Amino acid sequence: MRRNRLTAARTICSKHRCTHLLITVASDIEYISGFSSSQAVLLIGPEKNLLFTDFRYQEAARRFCAARRSGWPWRFVPVKGSGFSFLAPYVAPGSAVAFQSDAVTVDELERLKKAVPHARFAGIVREISGLGTVKTDAEAAAMKKAARIGEAAFERFLRQSLRPGITERRAAAMLDCACALLGSERSAFDTIVLFGERTSLPHDRPGGRRLAQGDLVLADFGCTVAGLCSDMTRTAVFGKPSQRQRELYEIVKRAQDAALRAARPGVAARSLDAAARAVIRNAGYGRAFGHALGHGIGRRVHERPRISNRSKEILQEGSVITVEPGIYLPGFGGVRIEDMALLTKRDCRRLTHSPRELVDIQS
Amino acid sequence: MRRNRLTAARTICSKHRCTHLLITVASDIEYISGFSSSQAVLLIGPEKNLLFTDFRYQEAARRFCAARRSGWPWRFVPVKGSGFSFLAPYVAPGSAVAFQSDAVTVDELERLKKAVPHARFAGIVREISGLGTVKTDAEAAAMKKAARIGEAAFERFLRQSLRPGITERRAAAMLDCACALLGSERSAFDTIVLFGERTSLPHDRPGGRRLAQGDLVLADFGCTVAGLCSDMTRTAVFGKPSQRQRELYEIVKRAQDAALRAARPGVAARSLDAAARAVIRNAGYGRAFGHALGHGIGRRVHERPRISNRSKEILQEGSVITVEPGIYLPGFGGVRIEDMALLTKRDCRRLTHSPRELVDIQS
Repeated sequence: MRRNRLTAARTICSKHRCTHLLITVASDIEYISGFSSSQAVLLIGPEKNLLFTDFRYQEAARRFCAARRSGWPWRFVPVKGSGFSFLAPYVAPGSAVAFQSDAVTVDELERLKKAVPHARFAGIVREISGLGTVKTDAEAAAMKKAARIGEAAFERFLRQSLRPGITERRAAAMLDCACALLGSERSAFDTIVLFGERTSLPHDRPGGRRLAQGDLVLADFGCTVAGLCSDMTRTAVFGKPSQRQRELYEIVKRAQDAALRAARPGVAARSLDAAARAVIRNAGYGRAFGHALGHGIGRRVHERPRISNRSKEILQEGSVITVEPGIYLPGFGGVRIEDMALLTKRDCRRLTHSPRELVDIQS
Repeated sequence: MRRNRLTAARTICSKHRCTHLLITVASDIEYISGFSSSQAVLLIGPEKNLLFTDFRYQEAARRFCAARRSGWPWRFVPVKGSGFSFLAPYVAPGSAVAFQSDAVTVDELERLKKAVPHARFAGIVREISGLGTVKTDAEAAAMKKAARIGEAAFERFLRQSLRPGITERRAAAMLDCACALLGSERSAFDTIVLFGERTSLPHDRPGGRRLAQGDLVLADFGCTVAGLCSDMTRTAVFGKPSQRQRELYEIVKRAQDAALRAARPGVAARSLDAAARAVIRNAGYGRAFGHALGHGIGRRVHERPRISNRSKEILQEGSVITVEPGIYLPGFGGVRIEDMALLTKRDCRRLTHSPRELVDIQS
């Protein structure tokens, strides 16, 4: 599998008529080579594929590059000193180096050019991060497992954590703990837990607001398994839902259903957004749904395809997307329902299975 | 306080002979304006200071900019559409826009230039992120509080989490939970917990290694309070320490003491590194301490000054640094002791207070 990924990376390099490909994003390095660290550099060249790390990862990198079967494509080079001067001996004059211009900063590029003045540098955008948009079975299974952990954690959260007077911040911490203890490698992103009227702030940070009877409760969170993310949002009511809460919830759920029904390989991503948006607009809440419907997800929580009304992408079999319509009414509150779906041959299959009925949490 | 920060940002802008300063890093936006989000843009101009956000933060940004006392310097502009075209109406022809070239990617700069072709762009490096290196009393107090939470969590971790057979991954999750439940806003970085011979990998990710009698246990983790980080490492032994474990530990502790004794405003950062390194080298382990001694810490876990043998910086009163020497012996294990210290008028004061004696954890 890794070998296919290396081949795919090489193909991108050739397409840009470059001799070398420089990979500097940790998650891309892990995806292509299998080596995991917080800081390393890969240089894929015409003859050699090099992995550079500093002292902190030296023992790990040495083992990674040495102890494998013959034909192992990676060679370890320890890095001393600062800047990018370690690259110079490995890039012959006249080389052309493709780099990730959507990740390399303006300052880093200047330092690269200074360190390797005899090479030409060519920026490539989103092509490396786009590798892996189509999931292998093993990747889809890991994402399903991440989703399962999230579901179990959320169930525990509803049952055990939500007590009158608990703050959003503490509730979010308890949800994070449940995920971690059930096996999530890390949060896929900063967990959002909001109560009451604050649920109308689609992405606010959990704060000191305390849970009270009748509050909407919105939780948006994700887990990680084998470096792959899950992402799910549920909205519940603490106590008996009011008629309006119920009404908003049902509209959002119908919007999500419409989008999920429209999701299949070959259709335009924006048609899903349109399907969900039409339901919400027809119910009179068009202006209260201001964000995109969803996004691709994998080793990054946000990746291609973008599922918005401006997206020009076509859905592909094997990619995983989120579908997350919402209605946000300042002063009252908001409702969002988010699930992950894997695009299958003919349609799509949800990977998140927490109940989508409006839960009334009994205190 | 925020007003002083805005003034400091403006001074940097003028120094580069620019009319506008574009801030795109979320933590810098929060530091300068007080507005917290995962995505926003600040444009500090000759007449107006603008805060741009998309729908997700619109309600929050509107309130932030509206509900303050008169003279509030920020005006909210909602963003629709993609790219940076929203900036164009606010940057008059002939303007010079300073941007964070250590954070803006090569691709983003191209899109900026396309969106605002009539402006000149000038990169500034580390000056904005360097604001706040010298802490106010309130900032130092928040860091102390973050450290306190970490200490309490670590004590609980030693007492309750470490049982024979627990995996590094689960132990790390339990440490994270303790931090979160004791009030940390989030982990300052991915928590490191390593057991046995794996402690020689200075920064490895917690894995499936299970705790056994006689193992070294290394934990490196940090908490966050008011957006400010703590960072601490402790090494313990599960059971009775061997003579060699004890010996390595004492060397590292002496190295740390030497560096802490050398730490005061006005001295070269590299002299601390040299003081610690000399102790380890004289004990015969010079090659086993391959990383820098420490780093500044604040709203970023790594910030200026860098405390290494190549650092050219001079320590300043009011900055907070980490001092973290280590000895790493592949196949045997490693020892690292890390504390945070605030540089005071004459010397320095430790902000982390977990016992620095070698703890033998009784199972």
